[in-house]
Amino acid sequence: MPKPSTSARETLALNLIRLRGKLGWTQEVLAHEAGIHRTYIGDLERQARNVSIDNIERLAHALGVETWVLLKRAQ
Amino acid sequence: MPKPSTSARETLALNLIRLRGKLGWTQEVLAHEAGIHRTYIGDLERQARNVSIDNIERLAHALGVETWVLLKRAQ
Repeated sequence: MPKPSTSARETLALNLIRLRGKLGWTQEVLAHEAGIHRTYIGDLERQARNVSIDNIERLAHALGVETWVLLKRAQ
Repeated sequence: MPKPSTSARETLALNLIRLRGKLGWTQEVLAHEAGIHRTYIGDLERQARNVSIDNIERLAHALGVETWVLLKRAQ
C-alpha cells in the first residue's frame, strides 16, 4: 500500500517547529531536552527521517505535550 | 533522558487491538491492508518493536483513522 497523501512526517515537522518556537527553544535546546542529536532534530523538521515511536515520545515529553499531539494538525 | 513512564508503545498496542477488533480483522487482515508483515503486527501488539512514523501512518490509514488517534488513549 502506498504512503497516504497526508503526511504524518509533515504534521510532526510543523508541530516541532511550532511548539519549539512557542517555548523559544533552538534546535539545540530541544535536542538537549529530548536526549536526541541536534542534527536529527533538523532532519525531522525537514521531514527527512522516519522517526520511531520512542523518539516521538521523547520529543513530546521534552516539549510538555502528550505524544499524540505531535501527530495532530494544529487548528 | 529516560523513557517517560506513560508508554506510547502501550497506547499504540491497545489501539491496534481495539480498532482491529472493532473491524473484526485478524492480525493477518490488518497486515495485508497495511502492507506490513503479520509477525510485525504481533510484535506491535506485544509492544516489542520501536515502530516508525511511516508505519504508524500506514496502520492508521488501513484502520480508517487519523494517525494521531493511534497514539491517544481511548476514553
